[in-house]
Amino acid sequence: MDVDLEAAVVRQGDLVRALKEQSAPKQEIDAAVTVLKDLKVKLAAKEAASAQVKNFRETVTNVLKRRLFFVKSFKIYGGVAGLFDYGPPGSAVKDNVLSFWHQHFVVYDDLLKVDCPCLTPEAVLKASGHVDRFTDLMVKDVKLGDCYRADHVVKDFVKDALEKDPRMPAAQKEDYARTLASLDDFTADELGAKIKEYGIKAPDSKNDLSEPFPFNLMFATPIGPAGLLQGYLRPETAQGMFVNFNELLLYNGGKLPFGAAQVGQAFRNEISPRQGLLRVREFTLAEIEFFVDPVDKSHPRFGSVADLEFFLFPRSQQVNMSAPLKVRLGDAVAQKIIDNETLGYYIGRTYLFLTTLGINKERLRFRQHLANEMAHYAADCWDAEIECSYGWIECVGLADRSAYDLEAHSAASNTKLVASRNLPEPILVEEFRPVPNRKQIGICFKADQKLVLESLEKLSSEEVVEMVAKLESAGEAPLHSDSTDKTFTIKKGMVDKQVTKKTKDKESFTPSVIEPSFGIGRIIYCLFEHCFDTREGADSVEQLNFFRFPPVVAPVKCSVFSLVQNAGLDELAQSISVELRRAGLAVKTDITGRSIGKRYARTDEIGIPFAITVDSSEGGVTVRDRDSKEQIRVPVEQVTQLLADLSAGNKKWKDARCAYPAHTSSDKTDEDKTDE
Amino acid sequence: MDVDLEAAVVRQGDLVRALKEQSAPKQEIDAAVTVLKDLKVKLAAKEAASAQVKNFRETVTNVLKRRLFFVKSFKIYGGVAGLFDYGPPGSAVKDNVLSFWHQHFVVYDDLLKVDCPCLTPEAVLKASGHVDRFTDLMVKDVKLGDCYRADHVVKDFVKDALEKDPRMPAAQKEDYARTLASLDDFTADELGAKIKEYGIKAPDSKNDLSEPFPFNLMFATPIGPAGLLQGYLRPETAQGMFVNFNELLLYNGGKLPFGAAQVGQAFRNEISPRQGLLRVREFTLAEIEFFVDPVDKSHPRFGSVADLEFFLFPRSQQVNMSAPLKVRLGDAVAQKIIDNETLGYYIGRTYLFLTTLGINKERLRFRQHLANEMAHYAADCWDAEIECSYGWIECVGLADRSAYDLEAHSAASNTKLVASRNLPEPILVEEFRPVPNRKQIGICFKADQKLVLESLEKLSSEEVVEMVAKLESAGEAPLHSDSTDKTFTIKKGMVDKQVTKKTKDKESFTPSVIEPSFGIGRIIYCLFEHCFDTREGADSVEQLNFFRFPPVVAPVKCSVFSLVQNAGLDELAQSISVELRRAGLAVKTDITGRSIGKRYARTDEIGIPFAITVDSSEGGVTVRDRDSKEQIRVPVEQVTQLLADLSAGNKKWKDARCAYPAHTSSDKTDEDKTDE
Repeated sequence: MDVDLEAAVVRQGDLVRALKEQSAPKQEIDAAVTVLKDLKVKLAAKEAASAQVKNFRETVTNVLKRRLFFVKSFKIYGGVAGLFDYGPPGSAVKDNVLSFWHQHFVVYDDLLKVDCPCLTPEAVLKASGHVDRFTDLMVKDVKLGDCYRADHVVKDFVKDALEKDPRMPAAQKEDYARTLASLDDFTADELGAKIKEYGIKAPDSKNDLSEPFPFNLMFATPIGPAGLLQGYLRPETAQGMFVNFNELLLYNGGKLPFGAAQVGQAFRNEISPRQGLLRVREFTLAEIEFFVDPVDKSHPRFGSVADLEFFLFPRSQQVNMSAPLKVRLGDAVAQKIIDNETLGYYIGRTYLFLTTLGINKERLRFRQHLANEMAHYAADCWDAEIECSYGWIECVGLADRSAYDLEAHSAASNTKLVASRNLPEPILVEEFRPVPNRKQIGICFKADQKLVLESLEKLSSEEVVEMVAKLESAGEAPLHSDSTDKTFTIKKGMVDKQVTKKTKDKESFTPSVIEPSFGIGRIIYCLFEHCFDTREGADSVEQLNFFRFPPVVAPVKCSVFSLVQNAGLDELAQSISVELRRAGLAVKTDITGRSIGKRYARTDEIGIPFAITVDSSEGGVTVRDRDSKEQIRVPVEQVTQLLADLSAGNKKWKDARCAYPAHTSSDKTDEDKTDE
Repeated sequence: MDVDLEAAVVRQGDLVRALKEQSAPKQEIDAAVTVLKDLKVKLAAKEAASAQVKNFRETVTNVLKRRLFFVKSFKIYGGVAGLFDYGPPGSAVKDNVLSFWHQHFVVYDDLLKVDCPCLTPEAVLKASGHVDRFTDLMVKDVKLGDCYRADHVVKDFVKDALEKDPRMPAAQKEDYARTLASLDDFTADELGAKIKEYGIKAPDSKNDLSEPFPFNLMFATPIGPAGLLQGYLRPETAQGMFVNFNELLLYNGGKLPFGAAQVGQAFRNEISPRQGLLRVREFTLAEIEFFVDPVDKSHPRFGSVADLEFFLFPRSQQVNMSAPLKVRLGDAVAQKIIDNETLGYYIGRTYLFLTTLGINKERLRFRQHLANEMAHYAADCWDAEIECSYGWIECVGLADRSAYDLEAHSAASNTKLVASRNLPEPILVEEFRPVPNRKQIGICFKADQKLVLESLEKLSSEEVVEMVAKLESAGEAPLHSDSTDKTFTIKKGMVDKQVTKKTKDKESFTPSVIEPSFGIGRIIYCLFEHCFDTREGADSVEQLNFFRFPPVVAPVKCSVFSLVQNAGLDELAQSISVELRRAGLAVKTDITGRSIGKRYARTDEIGIPFAITVDSSEGGVTVRDRDSKEQIRVPVEQVTQLLADLSAGNKKWKDARCAYPAHTSSDKTDEDKTDE
């Protein structure tokens, strides 16, 4: 509901009443009444629209659950909040989305795909910051121990208060509104202060609430029988790519730029999951880490997306309370609205990915993070947001994270994670090498002397300088052997340094990483909503539901019917099904002989784009298009190739319609005739 | 090593010495010496073969790691035992295996695929038996707390003793051998007794070991912020299908048989992971649960696999110490070697699946479980075992689990999980309905009266009879309301029963389930070994490694080279690559202009089946086959379609060779010429 509009109606009503009491001039009263009427009409329209959205969501959700697109997990045991199963059509849509993602990103750009475990040891997630900072603020019912997200509790309280009391004093309303807008930025202390100030109690019991405290959202589980290695279920797939950076760089011939990719499960122990498929405790992510030289973030294929035009919602527009802009991507990068070409390239590819799947381009925007949303190290961040009945939902994050992740893992693991670039021209550098006193080292370290000499040999120029300085000042210095993890104490006189001049034509640096991260479940839910539609049934009374899935994501590509139950027709239908399956197409065969209109309605409801009806044992079959309900006649021996082309998107329906004669409706195959 | 053969050599040597000492007849001594020599030759051959196997494994593993097929996870942090990452070629092979699995099982047989979370609440795994019985026996070092698998400790001790002491007394040897053979059947007490009897100590420290105790192999993690809902990471994907049985049956129009399928991660907290990719803590399973009527386990498509002939290793052959048999599948089912057609069908389909992937059919067998391996409820179980350098490895389990799982979940969740079948002819049955005394119920239950009446109405005929009997005998009976989870106490006089006669034409039953379960990681590792090969390089000195992956699993389908660095050739190579990618093929482009022989060697080593070399800007390109090293000339405009057909298996190389002229070797493109 629209709180502002409702308050305006109340205020205007008060004004009219006051005018009447004061016996104000009729003209003045009439004018105020007209304003009041207008406001009421607007409010009613808003309320109707909001009811319509809620109604729409309920209708879609009912179909999705009834046709087993998804279902609460472990339902016979009462279910678990935030866990859902995809049933056959949902699982097929998911597979198709992932398969297209693979084709669109991994194959198209030759990304290096990896597959790492969900189980992750603590050291990795400590370095990435998740152990310390992957938290939400939580409050507890001090008596019952029930847990709530602190910001949800405040948000629900404030919204509720605003809705229940349209006559609230303006100052209080403004305070509430300011609180709502700042919720994401509040510290634990600030949230705690608000809970106290507003006297907020536990929503279920009305008991007092604890102070807010950070709750880590990772699922913890020890690895190994002794329980000594702390592990977590990964909260994202990204870390597996960062820790393999050196291997991947080598695999790529030592060259930048290159992208790594990973698809898999990630986990987030939500305090109170809400919004169905949009906020769950286990989900599938598809992520890319594209490594670039920080001084050159151009992308060789940027030209292929530069002419795309779509909605951007830059920081400046948000701050000015202005609307998103439709901008040409090339201009957005040229004008530095988007920081660099590589980030721009992936924004463009993401736009193509989502719209090809069936996301409505008018309900898709790329929103730039505000300064306070963005991590301090990030160069630029954008979210692909899709509008659905829950509002604008973040479905893809696109961030230039600079060198943060590689530097963090490099420091924590004591492993260099760098690439190298050619210098514009070679330079002469001084390099210091160790000069060991072999005799003294032999006497002192005996069996270990070889190891000590090897470890000395591995020191970098800087380390040699540092060691010799330490020997001078302190008389001894530690020497660590990486291969055996032993540390030796080197004494003064055992090592000296020698300088050499070397020509250097390369320099090393930590690459920047640009990370597009796709929340597959969220994209799928938005896709369900955007593809859902209703139309009149044959009897002009019933409303029939259907999904306008493009063939690429449709869970089943084609249904095969025999018009009536009849051995000849059934056999032909079965053999066509076998052929289609052999061509790799998911097919649904129905030879029940039920009314053809009803069969179309059932397959439309899970979004099957094409249907083949076998109506005679010779002379071809009828192929019907879900969206237009048009039908054509196709010879049996051509139908597999036609359906393969239509399903792969190599042919459009209109191509097929031109190539084959239209089906002239007979009573029997016409779905719009009322049938028994 | 072959312990028996080694002991025989020792015994024969002793005999020869004794004969000589006794100055036995020369003829007798000579005969004994001949036997000794034969034995030594055999032993040497066995040892050489075993060294060769080990050497082979090392070579394959080196290539697999060097070319990033797989790598220890979190290497820069020291790694975690039992966790591995697939790098780009390994991840691509895995994707291809899964995609072919989907096509071969799900699409081909129209299985109902679902996608459930890894996180699973305790109730589900309690019902399935995993909470109580998914354990391995563990022993602990009593001082240090180090953990070991009890059977491993005994096995390693016994094997070690046998190897170190070939002169061991026969009785002791026999005892050790019997222990080895019985390890899998030992209880905790029996294993503990053996550890005591043999005086086995902790392998690392030689400290005493604890008594063996069961260690649950599931990773535990609480779900939700309060930590009150105990959860586990699923040890298999099967449970998600069982708990959705009612939904899936409904989705299938209430009809049996049907199969559900699921692919996903599963977890097993191994006590001490060994054998690389074969025993890991996180792995991908692909499982089918095929639900059938227990009185009719025929399969409509059994005929399509009945004529396959391959190795079966039935229980009887194992007990008799005989070899596996090559049997026609149809005969095996007809002779009841395999229990039923549906189980037989999936054994046949599994055989086709594995051999199409590239598993050597001479190193694949289906081994029946011995009586003591099989759960009491199982009707029949077979494992697809693949021979690799670690021995015969169980890669697929195929079990007829009867009604066990559905009955267990039905009982634990108090939900009927049944299907129904038509009776041969309708029968008349007596059915009892409750007759409530509405007045008394109203007085007694007031606000709840409606709920009580509804709950009564939901009682089954048996429950009505039971309740009325209880009211007679005890004066009261409990009534449970499922919807509210309340229990009411019904008093005598409130309910009576009334009998009606009803015609019944259906009866309900719990379906049996046949479960094929594929360990994808194990299959992939065996595939790596079976496809690995070496051949002589151009210089006749170097041995070149390559993988004979069939195109369906090859990580990259085609490489595209320009013969020399040259703008025209490079551009054409790039445009061919783009075309191939557009056709959905994973492609590797290399325009470095390095020697073509070296480039072929590098791409052979990751098993790329075809290479296109652009050697002139007009007049076609050269296409080379990895396995035969043959080359043909193909016009540029036909090359995409040809490669698409070869990659999909629609065309074989020999078809291509017939359709296009052979490439007449020039110096430049002939890999066997020594190049700079």
